[in-house]
Amino acid sequence: MVLDKIKQPNDIKNLTHEELEALPAEIRQFLIEHLSKTGGHLASNLGTVELTMALHMVLDFPKDKLVWDVGHQAYTHKILTGRAGEFDHLRKYGGMSGFPKRCESPCDSFDTGHSSTSLSAALGYCLARDLAGEDYKVAAVIGDGALTGGLAYEALNNASRLKNSNMLIVLNDNEMSISKNVGGMSTNLERLRTSSKYVGFKNNVLSSLENWPHGEHIIRKIRSTKNGIKSLMVPNMVFEDLGIMYLGPVDGHNIDALVETFNMAMGIKGPVLVHVITKKGNGYEPAERHPARFHGTDIFDIETGLPQRSSNPGYTDVFSTVMRKMGDRKPEVVAITAAMAEGAGLKRFRNMFPDRFFDVGIAEEHAVTFAAGLALGGRIPVFAVYSSFLQRAYDQVLEDVCLQNLHVVFAIDRAGLVGADGSTHQGIFDVSFLTAMPNMTVMAPKNKWELSDMLKFAIDFNGPIAIRYPRGEAYCGLEEHRAPIELGKSEEICSGDQIMLLAYGSMVKKAEEVRDLLAEQGINAGICNARFAKPLDKGYLDSLVNNYSLVVTMEENVITGGFGQQVQTYLIDHGYNGKILKIAVPDEFVQHGSVTQLFSELGMDAQSITDKVLKVLGR
Amino acid sequence: MVLDKIKQPNDIKNLTHEELEALPAEIRQFLIEHLSKTGGHLASNLGTVELTMALHMVLDFPKDKLVWDVGHQAYTHKILTGRAGEFDHLRKYGGMSGFPKRCESPCDSFDTGHSSTSLSAALGYCLARDLAGEDYKVAAVIGDGALTGGLAYEALNNASRLKNSNMLIVLNDNEMSISKNVGGMSTNLERLRTSSKYVGFKNNVLSSLENWPHGEHIIRKIRSTKNGIKSLMVPNMVFEDLGIMYLGPVDGHNIDALVETFNMAMGIKGPVLVHVITKKGNGYEPAERHPARFHGTDIFDIETGLPQRSSNPGYTDVFSTVMRKMGDRKPEVVAITAAMAEGAGLKRFRNMFPDRFFDVGIAEEHAVTFAAGLALGGRIPVFAVYSSFLQRAYDQVLEDVCLQNLHVVFAIDRAGLVGADGSTHQGIFDVSFLTAMPNMTVMAPKNKWELSDMLKFAIDFNGPIAIRYPRGEAYCGLEEHRAPIELGKSEEICSGDQIMLLAYGSMVKKAEEVRDLLAEQGINAGICNARFAKPLDKGYLDSLVNNYSLVVTMEENVITGGFGQQVQTYLIDHGYNGKILKIAVPDEFVQHGSVTQLFSELGMDAQSITDKVLKVLGR
Repeated sequence: MVLDKIKQPNDIKNLTHEELEALPAEIRQFLIEHLSKTGGHLASNLGTVELTMALHMVLDFPKDKLVWDVGHQAYTHKILTGRAGEFDHLRKYGGMSGFPKRCESPCDSFDTGHSSTSLSAALGYCLARDLAGEDYKVAAVIGDGALTGGLAYEALNNASRLKNSNMLIVLNDNEMSISKNVGGMSTNLERLRTSSKYVGFKNNVLSSLENWPHGEHIIRKIRSTKNGIKSLMVPNMVFEDLGIMYLGPVDGHNIDALVETFNMAMGIKGPVLVHVITKKGNGYEPAERHPARFHGTDIFDIETGLPQRSSNPGYTDVFSTVMRKMGDRKPEVVAITAAMAEGAGLKRFRNMFPDRFFDVGIAEEHAVTFAAGLALGGRIPVFAVYSSFLQRAYDQVLEDVCLQNLHVVFAIDRAGLVGADGSTHQGIFDVSFLTAMPNMTVMAPKNKWELSDMLKFAIDFNGPIAIRYPRGEAYCGLEEHRAPIELGKSEEICSGDQIMLLAYGSMVKKAEEVRDLLAEQGINAGICNARFAKPLDKGYLDSLVNNYSLVVTMEENVITGGFGQQVQTYLIDHGYNGKILKIAVPDEFVQHGSVTQLFSELGMDAQSITDKVLKVLGR
Repeated sequence: MVLDKIKQPNDIKNLTHEELEALPAEIRQFLIEHLSKTGGHLASNLGTVELTMALHMVLDFPKDKLVWDVGHQAYTHKILTGRAGEFDHLRKYGGMSGFPKRCESPCDSFDTGHSSTSLSAALGYCLARDLAGEDYKVAAVIGDGALTGGLAYEALNNASRLKNSNMLIVLNDNEMSISKNVGGMSTNLERLRTSSKYVGFKNNVLSSLENWPHGEHIIRKIRSTKNGIKSLMVPNMVFEDLGIMYLGPVDGHNIDALVETFNMAMGIKGPVLVHVITKKGNGYEPAERHPARFHGTDIFDIETGLPQRSSNPGYTDVFSTVMRKMGDRKPEVVAITAAMAEGAGLKRFRNMFPDRFFDVGIAEEHAVTFAAGLALGGRIPVFAVYSSFLQRAYDQVLEDVCLQNLHVVFAIDRAGLVGADGSTHQGIFDVSFLTAMPNMTVMAPKNKWELSDMLKFAIDFNGPIAIRYPRGEAYCGLEEHRAPIELGKSEEICSGDQIMLLAYGSMVKKAEEVRDLLAEQGINAGICNARFAKPLDKGYLDSLVNNYSLVVTMEENVITGGFGQQVQTYLIDHGYNGKILKIAVPDEFVQHGSVTQLFSELGMDAQSITDKVLKVLGR
């Protein structure tokens, strides 16, 4: 195995040409085998094997800096920097992260997870380097999907600041975000891809190069280089009008062409974008056929490509079903996603109502302000978005939706602990940031029927309204408790003797477990399904003041500014003298691991909560 | 006066040609006279007089929708829709807002204030219109400055979705944000501006038009149109590569040319961008000379253009001075602004250290992630930003700075109530959203010396750290209280009998007034300058538990998730049984008006606070 010779960074440079030729297939085999047992981001990593190898041929780690946009495509980088042995524990608690992590390796230059940040970070490195008089190289790898995010454009617009030193931008173009890519830029890239096939090398590239600083030097380089690259050069005015040299497209699975182009690009002063064409899922037929399903996959059977675990319907499926129904019932309903049609459960809505479905690309800010415009035009927009990605549109939710008090529905998936994706993807801040916004309503369902009821309520509402629900299986208990949703009204599941478990959303299920554990100790605790974090159910809270001596708030959100603090301050301000125990995510970032492990680690599993209650009770 | 004939929307269409020609000068005179007495955004509005008139000639209000990006340039729109009589109360409490407001007029289609939102909102209107089968026109006016914001690009990237209906994008290009514009896009626009002077009409525009849907129709139009427009057409691949028809540049002070181009543009199916060249401050010599100073001006003398009020040094000036000193002392210090070099106090730093100063354009997201990259490269970045604009980088502060625990200093100006700019600009959310972020430190100074000390502390710190300070004059009291800044340590100004005023930042000054008012009633209240909202001074709070029976928290931030709620939950959790009174901005948006009026209206002036304290005490 050639792979065995890769023990540490830069070992790849000592391989023979034959070994180099054998390596991609070995890496693909390694990834397929390991990910079939652990799950992980398969399709994107199969697409970047040669691209990563080529970067490791031309860069010197850890001196040089390489920033991976989003970061889920960096598995080959992990292998080439000596972390192959960690793949058995990929994305597991205490094991290796699925994203670049500076704490894992000095060869990881920037922790990523959210899209479109790499160019800004790399530009920061470049200018820091130049100010310090150092000379390391800086490269960023960004997908064509990430290029739909405005942050990437802001960085491109600033890149021309770099005049006397180099920044290498590798555009990893696989025609996909997670879904098929959208927008004018995508069409533009498509044009570049196809034009190269028919037009070949254009002389006007050379003549336009003459206007560039160092253009003549590049022209000499291009003229002296192999035909394989030369014939791929086409002009791209979008990047060049922004002051960025464009080279490409280059075959992303041809290591020689990549190495030659990267070396050429890094010889140029100023920012250079190399347009690399890759294929998601390359080398594994099921992933080539279903790149979206193999974007982030659970464990699977290598032969068939089919998932090994059959999963029960999740909250996303419930959302998907109700959206389809509501789309039928109300022609005003429109759906928006930021490149997450599959993940956020809008595929069926898209298929039934293609004109009323909008995939805006990885552009959460636009999604929200666009929704505000749709609402003013008389539509009822539902923006389905993961909690941690809604963070990217904080200002638009506040200024464009809440300030104008517009009827936009936020269907917030992956709210709470998400597990294997780790710290960048935990959806644990939305209750805090949304409840601080005037005019906003924030709900969370206890089970699958309640998600359905809440979505209908939200669509019939008039104003900014959010529903948050967690990743994974939808809770099917408590079916008999289905009181109609009323604005700001909670639902008491059962009363208790002096102790009330006031649980928000997904924590109602945990409250049932806690109640049972307490019952074993002869303690009779009540359960209330809070339903609303905003507005709080003041009437119900008032009723607790004189009837309970311990209120336990439970939420899957950070403690600071969350549901518990708000309940506590309300109760205290209204005469409550009893005890309050707040169960919430502590003030820290939460790493990757199974959701069960994380709950336990954070002291939020049923037993830990029960122990805390008993402690407060002095038992 | 022709202006007297403008009583309501569309009245402009009834004017004779002579009257139309006289109107711009009248509007400019009107704006200069009124704004010299009220203050307001003068320079941008002098630049958009003819542009607005032309839009009102071709649009039908309120049926058609017009979205003003940022919105501070919409004064002529306010005049032409019948609001000239309101200018005496411009930006005053209860008076007309300085921004578009749907509550003021059905001709205001979208409330704006923050940059780069207009294209997303307009696109929402367009698609809502098409889905409803309606036929109103939709136009957006966006400045070249706003075009540096990624949100605008996200919308441009989505605009090509519009195939069978029109959206008019008016690019109001005055070569400025508030400061001189930056970046590759700006250079690209500059090229367009200058090329039109030398190159004239290019036949390849026509040939490129042939590839467009309806291109031939446009070519016929262009061929039959006046030379004045024809000679101004140059190709722009940035927009056209994104699928947006580009027309221009057009002289933004020539109404006939504007009307003709707008009509032509609205006849095209799909999104069309008309590039209009305007001059900030046009027609008033002092504003033409100093457009940045006349961006938002206080009252001024018309003859000289000089401000009528001499203002005392503000917190921004203190920041500016200390930054210059720290820049001298520490070569690692670099400064970042998002198009606010003047407003945020970085002009002197820029002049002294041009290589270490970065104006990134109106691109707060990029500013923060770029800062993260600079920090990793060994620099100490200070991002000076207004509180309400930092909201635009929520995710980048959380994911790129806090999660990686990087040393980035956030100098948050305009934190708290800002006055005349109103709801979009109030800086009243940052304490809530920043304190919920793990690893973040959040400070606020009581007076000008403390801002200086805190900035030095922050630059010597190691981790994400923010200092928030309000708009306007820096407090010069309490000079004798200058205990060294220690992480998470508050500063007790004086102890009291059972009552402690625990004030954050700017509210320390108010606490002094409250203390005096209470003293008149024979009540001896203590004052503590909290300094840190995160981490809280737990030791000090513990010391209050048994020694005080009323703690009054005071902050210039919303109540939800703010300083007061966090202090309250800490105290209650640690055995405090006394009363707590929280003085904070209630859960609502705060309109425009003088800061003094707003404090009073919100019950946060010294007398109101004193009354609340007396009420709690039962007096």
